[in-house]
Amino acid sequence: MEARTVQLVLHYDGGHFAGWQRQRAERTVQGVLEETLARLCAAPVPVTGAGRTDAGVHARGQAAGIRVAPKWEPFALRRALNATLPPDVWVAAAHEMRPEFHARYSALSRRYTYVVGTDEEAASPFRRPHELAERHPLDRARLDEAARTIVGEHCFRGFAVRGTAPEADDHRCIVRGARWIDRPGGLAFEIEANRFLHHMVRFLVGTMLEIARGRRPAAVMRAILESDHNRDVSPPAPAHALFLDRVEYPATLYTDVG
Amino acid sequence: MEARTVQLVLHYDGGHFAGWQRQRAERTVQGVLEETLARLCAAPVPVTGAGRTDAGVHARGQAAGIRVAPKWEPFALRRALNATLPPDVWVAAAHEMRPEFHARYSALSRRYTYVVGTDEEAASPFRRPHELAERHPLDRARLDEAARTIVGEHCFRGFAVRGTAPEADDHRCIVRGARWIDRPGGLAFEIEANRFLHHMVRFLVGTMLEIARGRRPAAVMRAILESDHNRDVSPPAPAHALFLDRVEYPATLYTDVG
Repeated sequence: MEARTVQLVLHYDGGHFAGWQRQRAERTVQGVLEETLARLCAAPVPVTGAGRTDAGVHARGQAAGIRVAPKWEPFALRRALNATLPPDVWVAAAHEMRPEFHARYSALSRRYTYVVGTDEEAASPFRRPHELAERHPLDRARLDEAARTIVGEHCFRGFAVRGTAPEADDHRCIVRGARWIDRPGGLAFEIEANRFLHHMVRFLVGTMLEIARGRRPAAVMRAILESDHNRDVSPPAPAHALFLDRVEYPATLYTDVG
Repeated sequence: MEARTVQLVLHYDGGHFAGWQRQRAERTVQGVLEETLARLCAAPVPVTGAGRTDAGVHARGQAAGIRVAPKWEPFALRRALNATLPPDVWVAAAHEMRPEFHARYSALSRRYTYVVGTDEEAASPFRRPHELAERHPLDRARLDEAARTIVGEHCFRGFAVRGTAPEADDHRCIVRGARWIDRPGGLAFEIEANRFLHHMVRFLVGTMLEIARGRRPAAVMRAILESDHNRDVSPPAPAHALFLDRVEYPATLYTDVG
């Protein structure tokens, strides 16, 4: 009997996990999902994520691929998972996919949001776990200019941890959109790209914030983008304000299409 | 030298505490504040709360009164506290008060909000810790009617735990406002009264929700309000969706007035 291929769309509070990827001694999202699925399905069910979020990074749209027995309709599987998973992981949706679907390699793009609080109340316990409480005035025009610099296809070696990705010699990413938007109590950086390098969003935000604080010249953004090393990048912004929001796949991979 | 009387306005995530009141073996908000103040001031500083929130109940406007050495200006004290307190307690404001100020007995009114999520995403880990994820359709007209019933001065013995308050034989409260309001993803119950009995808001919400789910007749609201016992009340709504929002004091108790 054929297995059923299912895409899970996941929310999780990254503050409770040592990142996405299964580790022997740490609580991870992949680990929790695989344990829960093994119990539900009474068999091992490997889980493939669209991206391996770091410790502390949240998701409200991470995608994961699994293969399960045909009896598991996506709707029933989602309900069973949500009844069984701990409260810090939630399955927002489950879609049946064509067998050739691969959560990581089929993805067309990912979208991340980095949340910055600029009012005093950003330090409140209801906001602090999920946003960066910024104490310095930020020059918004410099943020907008920096964001515009990175749109398009570039080598992002200057904004990545060196050599940690499996494709360590390919640093090209196509940034489809990058912009700062206003939100109540502060602002947020939204970025969508075909792929992201390790720590890339946090390096981009860390550098843009230093420019907007007036501590680095605006020109460093382009200089880092054009350099072949990462020695000029600012420290990465903290993980706890970063959300993986959405992973996009070709419509043709969904079984309910065409 | 006279002591300085200061009102602290506090936010805290109730999910991290065994309630407000100091206990020997549990982490409580009063306990954490008193430990932090004792370290800062190198002397014991008793903290009086406007109300003793239960385990799990949040605050984004609890008020507390302290007396400190005159060298502690409220602004400097607030900054020192926020630099020292753990991240789940935050001092939103500090006001110098007249010596006769008492955080509990001077309060004119308290306002609470109970947050109910009615969309599917209320189960997400970013909302579940702070709102009730309601699975049943709610009859909004019945909620509104029930809220109107309780406005005014009534004996709330029917909506309280028996005999736990020090003033166990006085159950009269003046409810200045009580209403359900719409919010993104659901609704919320706001109530303001001169005082609240033990578990009163949670009993009120628990009963109103049962009426709005169609499980109890609308008339029970008034019947419980007019009864001299609490045997007909529905179970209290869970603590984790309740916020103490604001405590009001006479303007004349603030030193910067008049």
